[in-house]
Amino acid sequence: MSLAEFSLIEKYFSALGAPRADVLLGVGDDAAQLSVPPNMSLITAVDTMVAGVHFPDNTCSDDIGYKLLAVNLSDLAAMGAEPAWFTLALTLPESDESWLAGFAEGISGLALQHGIQLVGGDTTRGPLVLTLQAHGLVPVEQCLKRSGAQVGDHIYVTGSLGDAALGLAIALDGDQYPDSVYLLERLNRPSPRVALGIALCSVAHSAIDISDGLLADLGHICQQSNVGALLELNQLPLSAAFRAAAASIDTALNGGDDYELCFTASADSDSTLQALARQHGCAISCIGKVVEGEGIVCHLDGVPCQVEKTGYQHFRG
Amino acid sequence: MSLAEFSLIEKYFSALGAPRADVLLGVGDDAAQLSVPPNMSLITAVDTMVAGVHFPDNTCSDDIGYKLLAVNLSDLAAMGAEPAWFTLALTLPESDESWLAGFAEGISGLALQHGIQLVGGDTTRGPLVLTLQAHGLVPVEQCLKRSGAQVGDHIYVTGSLGDAALGLAIALDGDQYPDSVYLLERLNRPSPRVALGIALCSVAHSAIDISDGLLADLGHICQQSNVGALLELNQLPLSAAFRAAAASIDTALNGGDDYELCFTASADSDSTLQALARQHGCAISCIGKVVEGEGIVCHLDGVPCQVEKTGYQHFRG
Repeated sequence: MSLAEFSLIEKYFSALGAPRADVLLGVGDDAAQLSVPPNMSLITAVDTMVAGVHFPDNTCSDDIGYKLLAVNLSDLAAMGAEPAWFTLALTLPESDESWLAGFAEGISGLALQHGIQLVGGDTTRGPLVLTLQAHGLVPVEQCLKRSGAQVGDHIYVTGSLGDAALGLAIALDGDQYPDSVYLLERLNRPSPRVALGIALCSVAHSAIDISDGLLADLGHICQQSNVGALLELNQLPLSAAFRAAAASIDTALNGGDDYELCFTASADSDSTLQALARQHGCAISCIGKVVEGEGIVCHLDGVPCQVEKTGYQHFRG
Repeated sequence: MSLAEFSLIEKYFSALGAPRADVLLGVGDDAAQLSVPPNMSLITAVDTMVAGVHFPDNTCSDDIGYKLLAVNLSDLAAMGAEPAWFTLALTLPESDESWLAGFAEGISGLALQHGIQLVGGDTTRGPLVLTLQAHGLVPVEQCLKRSGAQVGDHIYVTGSLGDAALGLAIALDGDQYPDSVYLLERLNRPSPRVALGIALCSVAHSAIDISDGLLADLGHICQQSNVGALLELNQLPLSAAFRAAAASIDTALNGGDDYELCFTASADSDSTLQALARQHGCAISCIGKVVEGEGIVCHLDGVPCQVEKTGYQHFRG
């Protein structure tokens, strides 16, 4: 890259996010030097977004920046971790200042909101590929895992399911739905459930974030906990926009990009969880229970029914 | 990606590197859970390699894998950090099993050698772009930085300079040199100076790894330490292969990809450093001294001379 390009990168990416006292050395050396408090575990997650695969080429850069951080914060939330630091590895076809400004702006607001600081990165020339690695902290014994589900647990999800999949259909195929603004917002600006994830540390037995669809991600909990799951389809939380779109229940079960949390907790946790839901302004719905065996069985009004498990495919992946 | 592709990725990337007791949760959850000992700083570095930019398209995948880890280990070395964990963010155009096997093999040998473990990652479909983030540990007070150089320090480099630049000329342009095997090895298989970097913590005042050329990288030390540098060109360490190629001294000053360490230490450190050089089987050469002012002045036999500062350009960057 030319000196002018390096200056542009420096302008937007030398100080991004919330300044933190535990960053002993941030952007500008060979590596960052960071301080992890005693009795805290380091949690680290990494996600890549590729133009034309994870977002349509015409997506505006502030939505791309926002979402790149949001999907990583959602991973931290699923572990019950408090966000701390992130790095950016940006491969860019050109240094378009308005694109870079928007991208940084999209990251910045969410980063400040969650108290996370950019501490390093690498910028290279090439096709648009964006990787963000997020680091968080959680008390050693409180880390949420996929493997802790217990037979008899209730299964919960936050927010609502399937909205982002409808948003993608609007963005890609021009599908028309009554509340398209809301659905696109759910696709482009997911709300990582960070504070709720931290609060769940003392309640949940297992957790995962829903990025590949409820069936696929709950399937990971089942597999890693050696249990099965029974879902009651009538209890799936669906937004008014989703219902107005008259979309199939399969979309709520398999749609990706929701970035809600799916977790399990003992059956007597309902009132605690409803208090947390009110406190964090985020619905928590009981959608089934953990059973012996393996795999996921779906019931409709108590009667077993077949659903299609398609998993989530990136739109051209 | 298809299930078959996920299985391939899992086959090669679920267990890579040296198993470590401080990995509480590795590949397979939403994020990794890692244990940082008290009084140690977390050091983190990230580097991306893009096909056609950082390596010619025909580079074999085990060389690519090796080098992707090596360049990040070199960053840890420049901080004096002991390698601990790494993550991989791989964007791949197709899932070619022999390519993946070679890539994993290239990483594996070096990872085992340095006791570093793969703890997470993300695999996406797209143009070949490879990001590795390395994490290391260093006692809080011993971390090496670019900013610690002091007027009167001697300036040192490890190994020899400019070999990788000649290797690149062979790989790209088909240049012919007497010892091309050695030069290509220096391009494709750099030796990160990890153990030496750790040993330097108690000797060096400042350090950087030479990825963009000596002048550019020593320039960072000068800038961040608010000092100048005086280089004696006759003292630059040049390999027999470099001398046999009759290459210009500008190549040794500006050639990228050397992944040697450049560091400064007090003038009475020479004997300590020569003992370290013998112990680690790696030459350490005094090439000049830190002076007041700013910028780098070059001398040839004590007489100031002009050199070209080109910086390092990725070959099509």
